[in-house]
Amino acid sequence: MIVIKKVKELTSIVGEKKKAGLSIGLVPTMGYLHEGHLTLAKKAREENDVVIMSIFVNPLQFGPNEDFESYPRDFERDQKLAEEAGVDILFAPEPNEMYPKPSMIVMNVVERTDRLCGEKRPGHFDGVVTVVTKLFHLAQPNRAYFGLKDAQQVAVINGLVESLNFPLEVIGVETVREENGLAKSSRNVYLTPTERQLAPHIYQALKAGRALAEQGEKDAEKVINETIAHLNEHTGAEIDYVELLSFPELTPVQTIKGQVILATAVKYSNARLIDNIIFECE
Amino acid sequence: MIVIKKVKELTSIVGEKKKAGLSIGLVPTMGYLHEGHLTLAKKAREENDVVIMSIFVNPLQFGPNEDFESYPRDFERDQKLAEEAGVDILFAPEPNEMYPKPSMIVMNVVERTDRLCGEKRPGHFDGVVTVVTKLFHLAQPNRAYFGLKDAQQVAVINGLVESLNFPLEVIGVETVREENGLAKSSRNVYLTPTERQLAPHIYQALKAGRALAEQGEKDAEKVINETIAHLNEHTGAEIDYVELLSFPELTPVQTIKGQVILATAVKYSNARLIDNIIFECE
Repeated sequence: MIVIKKVKELTSIVGEKKKAGLSIGLVPTMGYLHEGHLTLAKKAREENDVVIMSIFVNPLQFGPNEDFESYPRDFERDQKLAEEAGVDILFAPEPNEMYPKPSMIVMNVVERTDRLCGEKRPGHFDGVVTVVTKLFHLAQPNRAYFGLKDAQQVAVINGLVESLNFPLEVIGVETVREENGLAKSSRNVYLTPTERQLAPHIYQALKAGRALAEQGEKDAEKVINETIAHLNEHTGAEIDYVELLSFPELTPVQTIKGQVILATAVKYSNARLIDNIIFECE
Repeated sequence: MIVIKKVKELTSIVGEKKKAGLSIGLVPTMGYLHEGHLTLAKKAREENDVVIMSIFVNPLQFGPNEDFESYPRDFERDQKLAEEAGVDILFAPEPNEMYPKPSMIVMNVVERTDRLCGEKRPGHFDGVVTVVTKLFHLAQPNRAYFGLKDAQQVAVINGLVESLNFPLEVIGVETVREENGLAKSSRNVYLTPTERQLAPHIYQALKAGRALAEQGEKDAEKVINETIAHLNEHTGAEIDYVELLSFPELTPVQTIKGQVILATAVKYSNARLIDNIIFECE
């Protein structure tokens, strides 16, 4: 595995790979890798000749009161894990390498962002699509891999690729969970021991909601209330939202039908966690 | 030469060409081809394995009171000229092929647009960068060719490519002129016979301004005034603007130094014409 910090080096090596007719899989991350990321890398490894992983904590997608500075970083460990997962090229630029001067182009996402996390994080997805656009141009992937834990991000990036005709396939990969059901997240390290014991109930609450729907309940509000009740009873966290939306369009549904997402965000003392289930109803 | 109307067909053939390691030159146009466009195509022919020309009158870059509907079109003639110029693939989509639904992504150009034509055409360059981004993703060119007659467009597209790391080279090609100096333009057909006789003085006026600067005049205002005087005396047109800016940054200069652009737009009865000279001063 080679580690690259400079844009010019990356574009030069990517140019060679493309010229040789090799397929490229890209796994964009913010580092502090966990099994979720590594699952993306392994899938990319299976499906492409060359695997590029980027590690870049993108300042543009953090709000002024968010955790950009304190976002966990451990580059040495990441390097080892990426290599073990079969990554060929690890691209880890500094912010001034990605943004050497103010961008002449501002990108705004005008759909799929006014709910779930997007509602509470104005500008977040504008920052996401900007950095993802840059990474797509730099790495020129045939396939790009994103975890479905951030399902809204997958929905937005699908929209980006479709709207602007990027020549690549977006692959949303199933959320990786601990045995107890807790979704893997870089932010889990900020949970207290007690919170860690309670947090698996986030997923249990989503499953309780889904179970109700699968038993035939069509009223979205009842499914949401079931989920909220379970979260309140078992997780010891403050609920940020529970929403039930069509997927990937992310429009609210009253009567459950077709592919939907049941998603939640909850707050613990030092961490805000998100999780979701995507399922199909007749 | 093959003619393609559908996005899917284009991406499929472009995919084959890329896989075969061939280089691609793209010439984006709005059709009604003249020698300016054909010069771009010929240059692309010399420098690339495959030449793609697009013909697309992009509704997104026309304002509500502009000439989208009446913009001249002659596809049969264009087809013949493109083939003669060595184009391999002529991509001529309908608007609903390029914009099948409202875009989820809005792109805004936040520099280099608040003067010259950009000042009078709010949103124009937002529409330009959106369609150019889409065309770049569809045609995946190694090189893209634009005429320097619309120097502001070249400056904006250079900024687009730099800001978002597009993997391609933007090539600005010298303005093609009639023997009398009039810059070739699709809109020249709208000039009356008398206006056509006077219009070559637009270029003469720019040359008069440049001559003054080359004689040592450093005061931008005096050079602008010389140009205005010549325009007023000889062209019989209404002056929209005469500006002297740094190039490609397009910031106003008081004292002429370095690479600058002297640019003008004038209005005749049925056509607004633009022209410019880019030159270097010590």
